[in-house]
Amino acid sequence: MRKLNIGHILIGKPLATKDLPHQAVSKRVGLAVFASDALSSTAYATQEMLIILSLAGGGAALFGLSIPLAIAIAVLLVIVTLSYRQTIFAYPGGGGAYIVARDNLGELPAQIAGAALLTDYILTVAVSISAGVEQITSGFQGLIPFRVEIAVGIIILMTIVNLRGVKESGNIFAIPTYFFLGTMFLTLGIGFIKFITGTLPTVEGVEVLRHSVAEPLTLFLILRAFSSGCTALTGIEAISNGITAFEQPRSRNAAITLVWMSSILITLFLGITFLAHQIVAQPSEVETVISQLGRTIFGDGSVLYYLLLAGTALILLMAANTSYADFPRLAALHAGDGFLPRQLTYRGGRLVFAWGIMVLAIVASLLVILARASTTALIPLYAVGVFLSFTISQTGMVVRLLKVGKLKPGEKIQGLETALEYDPHWKKHLAISAIGAVCTFIVLIIFAVTKFASGAWFVVVLIPVLVFIFFRIHHHYKEVAHSLSLQGTRPDIHKRQVRTLILVDDVHAGTALMVNFAKSLDHPWQAIHVAVSPEKSEIVTRKWAERIGEGELIIEQSPYRLLTEPIINRIEMIQSETPGCFVHIIMGQLVMDNFLEQALHQNSAFIFNIALSHMERVVVTSVPYQIHHHSEQSVLQEALETEEPVGAWAESVARQSVPQN
Amino acid sequence: MRKLNIGHILIGKPLATKDLPHQAVSKRVGLAVFASDALSSTAYATQEMLIILSLAGGGAALFGLSIPLAIAIAVLLVIVTLSYRQTIFAYPGGGGAYIVARDNLGELPAQIAGAALLTDYILTVAVSISAGVEQITSGFQGLIPFRVEIAVGIIILMTIVNLRGVKESGNIFAIPTYFFLGTMFLTLGIGFIKFITGTLPTVEGVEVLRHSVAEPLTLFLILRAFSSGCTALTGIEAISNGITAFEQPRSRNAAITLVWMSSILITLFLGITFLAHQIVAQPSEVETVISQLGRTIFGDGSVLYYLLLAGTALILLMAANTSYADFPRLAALHAGDGFLPRQLTYRGGRLVFAWGIMVLAIVASLLVILARASTTALIPLYAVGVFLSFTISQTGMVVRLLKVGKLKPGEKIQGLETALEYDPHWKKHLAISAIGAVCTFIVLIIFAVTKFASGAWFVVVLIPVLVFIFFRIHHHYKEVAHSLSLQGTRPDIHKRQVRTLILVDDVHAGTALMVNFAKSLDHPWQAIHVAVSPEKSEIVTRKWAERIGEGELIIEQSPYRLLTEPIINRIEMIQSETPGCFVHIIMGQLVMDNFLEQALHQNSAFIFNIALSHMERVVVTSVPYQIHHHSEQSVLQEALETEEPVGAWAESVARQSVPQN
Repeated sequence: MRKLNIGHILIGKPLATKDLPHQAVSKRVGLAVFASDALSSTAYATQEMLIILSLAGGGAALFGLSIPLAIAIAVLLVIVTLSYRQTIFAYPGGGGAYIVARDNLGELPAQIAGAALLTDYILTVAVSISAGVEQITSGFQGLIPFRVEIAVGIIILMTIVNLRGVKESGNIFAIPTYFFLGTMFLTLGIGFIKFITGTLPTVEGVEVLRHSVAEPLTLFLILRAFSSGCTALTGIEAISNGITAFEQPRSRNAAITLVWMSSILITLFLGITFLAHQIVAQPSEVETVISQLGRTIFGDGSVLYYLLLAGTALILLMAANTSYADFPRLAALHAGDGFLPRQLTYRGGRLVFAWGIMVLAIVASLLVILARASTTALIPLYAVGVFLSFTISQTGMVVRLLKVGKLKPGEKIQGLETALEYDPHWKKHLAISAIGAVCTFIVLIIFAVTKFASGAWFVVVLIPVLVFIFFRIHHHYKEVAHSLSLQGTRPDIHKRQVRTLILVDDVHAGTALMVNFAKSLDHPWQAIHVAVSPEKSEIVTRKWAERIGEGELIIEQSPYRLLTEPIINRIEMIQSETPGCFVHIIMGQLVMDNFLEQALHQNSAFIFNIALSHMERVVVTSVPYQIHHHSEQSVLQEALETEEPVGAWAESVARQSVPQN
Repeated sequence: MRKLNIGHILIGKPLATKDLPHQAVSKRVGLAVFASDALSSTAYATQEMLIILSLAGGGAALFGLSIPLAIAIAVLLVIVTLSYRQTIFAYPGGGGAYIVARDNLGELPAQIAGAALLTDYILTVAVSISAGVEQITSGFQGLIPFRVEIAVGIIILMTIVNLRGVKESGNIFAIPTYFFLGTMFLTLGIGFIKFITGTLPTVEGVEVLRHSVAEPLTLFLILRAFSSGCTALTGIEAISNGITAFEQPRSRNAAITLVWMSSILITLFLGITFLAHQIVAQPSEVETVISQLGRTIFGDGSVLYYLLLAGTALILLMAANTSYADFPRLAALHAGDGFLPRQLTYRGGRLVFAWGIMVLAIVASLLVILARASTTALIPLYAVGVFLSFTISQTGMVVRLLKVGKLKPGEKIQGLETALEYDPHWKKHLAISAIGAVCTFIVLIIFAVTKFASGAWFVVVLIPVLVFIFFRIHHHYKEVAHSLSLQGTRPDIHKRQVRTLILVDDVHAGTALMVNFAKSLDHPWQAIHVAVSPEKSEIVTRKWAERIGEGELIIEQSPYRLLTEPIINRIEMIQSETPGCFVHIIMGQLVMDNFLEQALHQNSAFIFNIALSHMERVVVTSVPYQIHHHSEQSVLQEALETEEPVGAWAESVARQSVPQN
């Protein structure tokens, strides 16, 4: 039924709607799909802390501060994990910040949380892919000038893979995630053995990043380093958004995956930060901390070093995939509630939200290009949104648990996304969520203040603007629904008079078909020709009489060469003559075999359609006339047939407009 | 009748077609409009010769070669001028290479000449504006990093001015042309007085252009410098293309203007080259030769120096205007003959060929951006096209004059663009044209060979490609004319059966209007709903029964969520049931007040229109339903009204597509 096309080859055959529930993933694959964002942030979190600490000058002396900062971040991570685990059980249908906020706090906090998350998903793609490319160029420094091109190329490839659908994406991405975990644990393991046996050297030959002016070591700078390190927490919320993608029992599988993920994340982050300090790793523009670690532990040029780089690059690139799963899903939720264009709710042929994937890919590509694929340039914009959504989500859980606390045993409240049920442990759960909300709120403030000047201001401005736009869209949809509503009554659909006008540009086979259709409708009709050039209108009048020979052809003068205005005037005249009538405009449309040929014609049908669409009870019928290639004459042959006159029709069109005097 | 809009403010009120002949220019204004291209090339021709000569190393020692080269170019200029003067009299209706070639050599040479000229008109804009900006940045070196931005800004401004029409353009541009001539003659005059009195110093403080490798001084290099200098001839053909823009007697006025122009051009070019040699001007990336000349003659920072730079920059920027006059006119000629898209023949509201102007502006902007606004980067592409068209045009004149030679006194041959008449001096004229053709052909070959590697190859490839495309377009128009032709017979327009289908997406006020129209047509009809989601189709069925309550609503299943395919299948079924019938598709279209709001809706009317246009005798009627702002509720107010349920309609759309389990 459907022809094979290039789209099918790239993104697979269309899937039927009934195939939807089968696209679910196991814990093992779920970890690969949803954890890559969180795990991969270990690749840059340590490094970005060191870059800020190096601002204070004094070489590596202050880098030791990274250890207590990393421990503080690990504690925060435990709190957020425990808090999100509760959300997963409370919201088995998907407990992202948007749904939790909508359910417990109302529409405005939900939209703020959603705007914050959508912003951060885009940044996840930009940051992860930039960082991944930096790993690659650490190993192959000749590629440094092509960072932007490589990054954009990867985004395009990833977009195609995701347009195929999540199950296949999961299988593709399981291997790299486990490959990364293997190489990274091997690196940390051997690193620790060398450290314990006292054989761990310090790193050599790093082209160190130099700052023009050294800043004093202030609390502000330390908190700024802490903020940079907190990017390690990004992505931890991915599982709570994606619960529905898990196999049954969903909440349990998702919660187990979350705990696995957080444990691995803490181990990696602390391990990397500790070993980086031991080898005296240096922030550098051309070599990542992971590369320095690998070089020092395995030796420069060794196979294991390149495997580590490959694993890290792969997990980072795959991390972007978390956003490819979550951004379109969240955008569809917004759209479903009428806060984003409705098109975002439509699933494409492969059951994925194709519009959302495309929007993500385009905006992320632009960001990568603008930031020249530099992680350090993107980091200040990143994670503000995530911490804002953490805070809102956990505040929502606090509100929910306060309601739960008021329930008696066995009591249940319906009406929310998930019903409220009596819970004997509500006080413990409330305490966890409240601590989580307060902690993430404090980090949010630290983040916004310390990173404000270096880029966070943009996100601080962007989120309210997005929320405003969301409500503006919502307002529009409500207004349209109101305008269209029949208010439960039967509309009045009595017959009206129909006045028919045929628009005649020239008299040819297409014109004959239009007249044929008008006659077949069996209503009285008039034909009208807009006289842009007096010469042409004479020819048209004559040809009408000779070839059509029935009906009336009105010539409407247009001294300013306007096409639509004379028609609009005529319609207004008809409508004042026959109030309440339908004006039925019939016009021809030449249809070519392909787009390029179509572009060689005026396509005035579209112009008229748009121009007349604002007039009430004016309906426009287009009568297509298909032009097919009747013979494939050689163009060369044509070129050699010089002097042959152009077809009379093309000629007449030509002569009228070009001065020939 | 027409509302005031932003377009009218920028480009003026529309002009009536009858105003066309009044848009003619005097000799004085004609010189300003059509000569700026030719005259302005003196600003870079000398400099580009010196840049090539400097390739041979040895500092300024070889720059003396520029004097004999300039004299050779001046002789060539005299030959071309005399030859073109003949063309102007032979073709009072406009004697561009395209028309002369079409008239005397046939369609293929005409298309080649046209393709060459169109290419060069675009390059004229890019080269002249780049060179103009270089004059500005010679005086204000702080602006050097913004060359591209300034150049593109100027192109945009110039486009707006030209969309207003040629007469007003002429008045605007007369002042700068004469201002340039004033400052330039003053510079050369004072320069010569200082030279004669022995008080002319040599230039100091030039940041000289260094080449990495010195080339040997070969004949090839000298010919390459000659080619660069030959850019001085570009633009000399502009008057012959634009004869119809002159006041009566056109040919005489145009010919006088041509001779004026060439005389001024030779004087300026020789004068500049001579004085540049005397002050030992150096090719430089940051300072033009004109700037060095001005600085040396008037003193650095003097008012006259800045006036010279201003005059030179202005004439260069205005030179681009020659192309704004000629490119759209020539493109319209091609389009009129069916070799370019017909849209190019339509005059806009201001009687100018608006499409041609836009195409020129866009392509020239791209060239400027790609070449980073560097004249030297663009020069190798430039002038190949001009010399090709010179050669073809003069060969055409040779063929024409050979025919004239066969006529007897008083004899006349009609049928060509201008009639052939007996001419007693035909031998003299033939000799002039033949010499012109041979000389320009030799220069063309020198140009293509010596500049091939540095960029001319692109134009050498581009011109045949363009010619191929032109013939492909021509083939298409001929085929369409053939398909549409009624071959002088009356077509068969007997009544056919009409089968009507109403496409129903949802049941609302817009649906009621569609049904209202279908009923008013008084034909039997069926309604059809494509069931993308089973939940929604149930709601639609129920609402149809409740609110419309008549006619049959068919539910067509679409398991792959495709919208058009089930409709196409249904149409094919109807067509096989009722052969030869019209299938009349009626569909609704929600029309919003503005584009942004329209984009929030699916606009499936357009999608259906395109998808169904390839089916024979399937006509599509769209019934617009206008949504107006019924109340301007504050968005803030809306945002605060949390928890309010979304309109039932938006809700039902939302729920079906987003997983809510």
